[in-house]
Amino acid sequence: MLTVNAIAAPSATGSLVRTTIERRDVGPRDVLIEIRYAGICHSDIHTVRGEWGDVAYPLTVGHEIVGRVAEVGAEVTRHAVGDRVGVGCMVNSCRECENCRAGMEQYCLPGNTGTYAAVDRDGTITQGGYSTHVVVDEDFVLRVPEAIPYEKAAPLLCAGITTYSPLSHWKAGPGTRVAVVGMGGLGHMAVKIAAAKGAEVTVLSQTLGKKDDGLAFGAAHYYATSDPDTFDKLRNTFDLIVNTVSAPIDMHAYLSMLRLDGTLVSVGAPPEPLPVQVFTLFGNRRSFAGSGIGSIAETQEMLDFCAEHDIAPEIELITAGEVNAAYDRVLKSDVRYRFVIDINTL
Amino acid sequence: MLTVNAIAAPSATGSLVRTTIERRDVGPRDVLIEIRYAGICHSDIHTVRGEWGDVAYPLTVGHEIVGRVAEVGAEVTRHAVGDRVGVGCMVNSCRECENCRAGMEQYCLPGNTGTYAAVDRDGTITQGGYSTHVVVDEDFVLRVPEAIPYEKAAPLLCAGITTYSPLSHWKAGPGTRVAVVGMGGLGHMAVKIAAAKGAEVTVLSQTLGKKDDGLAFGAAHYYATSDPDTFDKLRNTFDLIVNTVSAPIDMHAYLSMLRLDGTLVSVGAPPEPLPVQVFTLFGNRRSFAGSGIGSIAETQEMLDFCAEHDIAPEIELITAGEVNAAYDRVLKSDVRYRFVIDINTL
Repeated sequence: MLTVNAIAAPSATGSLVRTTIERRDVGPRDVLIEIRYAGICHSDIHTVRGEWGDVAYPLTVGHEIVGRVAEVGAEVTRHAVGDRVGVGCMVNSCRECENCRAGMEQYCLPGNTGTYAAVDRDGTITQGGYSTHVVVDEDFVLRVPEAIPYEKAAPLLCAGITTYSPLSHWKAGPGTRVAVVGMGGLGHMAVKIAAAKGAEVTVLSQTLGKKDDGLAFGAAHYYATSDPDTFDKLRNTFDLIVNTVSAPIDMHAYLSMLRLDGTLVSVGAPPEPLPVQVFTLFGNRRSFAGSGIGSIAETQEMLDFCAEHDIAPEIELITAGEVNAAYDRVLKSDVRYRFVIDINTL
Repeated sequence: MLTVNAIAAPSATGSLVRTTIERRDVGPRDVLIEIRYAGICHSDIHTVRGEWGDVAYPLTVGHEIVGRVAEVGAEVTRHAVGDRVGVGCMVNSCRECENCRAGMEQYCLPGNTGTYAAVDRDGTITQGGYSTHVVVDEDFVLRVPEAIPYEKAAPLLCAGITTYSPLSHWKAGPGTRVAVVGMGGLGHMAVKIAAAKGAEVTVLSQTLGKKDDGLAFGAAHYYATSDPDTFDKLRNTFDLIVNTVSAPIDMHAYLSMLRLDGTLVSVGAPPEPLPVQVFTLFGNRRSFAGSGIGSIAETQEMLDFCAEHDIAPEIELITAGEVNAAYDRVLKSDVRYRFVIDINTL
């Protein structure tokens, strides 16, 4: 066992504190990663506050992890000491169900093993990336191209792949019109990726406050959803709407903006069900879908795509001591666009 | 103007009565059809009873129409006197919107012109197929292959195309698992068509009362949805679920039966919105979609497919005097599987 420095939540209501946690010994197929940067995802906050169900405390979260390989197990072939690597939202899966066999381990039927707050194969609870080191099976470790600035690579492992995957699956590209709902951590990556894929991108944000940013990130159009005219103007317009907002939305209003065979895909979800008018789906043969992160292979593809297209998230780099203040700002949507913890300060 | 015999609803609550209605003179691009058979669709009942909005009375419904061409306009090229033809749910569209230009006139953006209760291009209200004759633009008239028994062809124009279109669009075929929810007029056609396309078909019906029929129509499996075990057994099973039931369903339970990238497509709709848990859509990247009838070209393809595969609906042939009794039986789901009016009795 390795004892390593970390930041942990002591309870659902307490502030995060510096502590130490245990990492398993490096097994034959494991990689020990010395973490350099860890992104802060809104999911981290939902989880430590128990908003997505009970969790065991103390808990270390963080599933946007980049660092260097410090040690590899005897059977490891995919990574070597010194490699720049990343870990995202999952660290294992059953590898036997039909989805795992299809290379879609993010949809592992018994459930993939989350990077934190999940039961690991040894029965322990997984602990996330707000920490100096992590031990991960080599199959769930990504190569991070050197072309991506180190501190900016971390948010790609969740915000990047979560938006890249539906944009790829629903074929955002030249000739398609894509709307991105919400201009937060996920939304701003969706804009950059969709634009790089060649789509005509429209941002739908509550206000026009981030319009200049949106256009700089590659959007062609930017509308305020607080203006009801927006929905009238944009009826029957989009091939794909990527909804990054977790709060409930007026499904009829948003679905009505889809053109023939268009899909509204949610990557964020409110806990309560959303009322959907089936008659709205009849028009234009519309679809309402969900998408969760991406496979390991697709995550690698996304990292390589971002390196090739010179895409990276906008971040605010913080020290380990600033995490609680950062959480408060995330809850107020006061971040442009992702906090990243400099783990050297831990 | 032609004055022709018909059956009409005098009001939302009155019984249907024999009457006469007016048909426009045959224009240069029109076809006059001598109707032989007209199917009874549940939509007819919803419409005449004002359940889908106010309508003008008296109203003649019916959008499953087959007959012979009795006269053609001077510019008609697609049909000739004596041809066996059909008319479905629409008799015109704007022909200018992007969907019409794409050959998807069923999704005409200003709205296609319904076969009944719609405002026609001359400002009159369209009147449906419970009538001896109808005048229709040749572009909205289908050729009915002689291989399809005459009286059985009528329900293909609505129940057939409404199920054929989503089965084609979502690629039901060899290697796919398709569930059909509901074993009524639409459901039994969905089973026959999906089986003919080579899919492995499962029927999900409230009870096992029509199981023998379902298996005879080509289903491989038949489950009762009144048994909660059904939903546990069938989790993560289907590529496509075609929901033909208009009553609200438990969306979480049904969506959970979809495997990776599966779609639940509704072709019937309750007036109230259905609550959808987005987390259920995240699993297996599921989609919830709607589909409305099919294009004219696809309807022709469907008729030719049914002729080639020897598929036809199961019907109960009735006289014009039996329509009110038939409506009562439709409302009790007491029909196997579609009533067809013999218009010779009108």
